[in-house]
Amino acid sequence: MKALEEGNELQLDFTKLQKIAKTDSQVVPVVVQDADSHEVLVVAYANQQALDHTLKTGTATFWSTSRNELWIKGATSGDTLQIVDIRVNCEQNSLLYLVRMVGGGVCHTKDARGHTRKTCYYRSLKDGKLNFLEGQTPS
Amino acid sequence: MKALEEGNELQLDFTKLQKIAKTDSQVVPVVVQDADSHEVLVVAYANQQALDHTLKTGTATFWSTSRNELWIKGATSGDTLQIVDIRVNCEQNSLLYLVRMVGGGVCHTKDARGHTRKTCYYRSLKDGKLNFLEGQTPS
Repeated sequence: MKALEEGNELQLDFTKLQKIAKTDSQVVPVVVQDADSHEVLVVAYANQQALDHTLKTGTATFWSTSRNELWIKGATSGDTLQIVDIRVNCEQNSLLYLVRMVGGGVCHTKDARGHTRKTCYYRSLKDGKLNFLEGQTPS
Repeated sequence: MKALEEGNELQLDFTKLQKIAKTDSQVVPVVVQDADSHEVLVVAYANQQALDHTLKTGTATFWSTSRNELWIKGATSGDTLQIVDIRVNCEQNSLLYLVRMVGGGVCHTKDARGHTRKTCYYRSLKDGKLNFLEGQTPS
């Protein structure tokens, strides 16, 4: 069990974006939102190749900034994300993928019952601690 | 009129994150979502100082990566964003602010009627072109 993922302590990693820059990855952040429930599921990154693959296949594709390779979400598990719409922000330096989940959740972590979490944002910051939202009605 | 913001051409700026890294800003991306309509409004960045200010005041605060200074959203215009909840992702390298808009829209651009746009994601990518969503029902 990783304390970072299953703990109540806030330990924000402010270095992630600088690590990305050091790899020379030319990426934009991508917010992934459930087109039906409107829950924000994950923030990932895309380069031109990932966007092209997304547009060509209709399946949400990212650039893995840790592995430095194309990351077709759910390619292994079958839990792919079908693209409903792609939005671009004013300054064209980020993307919003509206998606429909084909299989289970989006997060790589599992809840206490062993189920893949639907969203990566399963903890809320209150009084300096992280509180798990599981079992509550999604906002 | 800036073509980047008011045009139909996709001209993604893949260099933004690398520019951020070069300034030595220790920031995480922050997705800002309307707590009521659930629309994604903007992606901005926060360092520890911006998060501390957000927690202390209950008003969404970011770190301006272009001006390298604290950015209290709406401090000038009065269009502040009240924090309803703050979510943290699994790997603790991004944040999700659920907010309630006090004044007008969040975007710095204005629509054809001269109204501040509510969200920065006012264009949809279709067949290689950006289509304006204005006048349509928010998704």
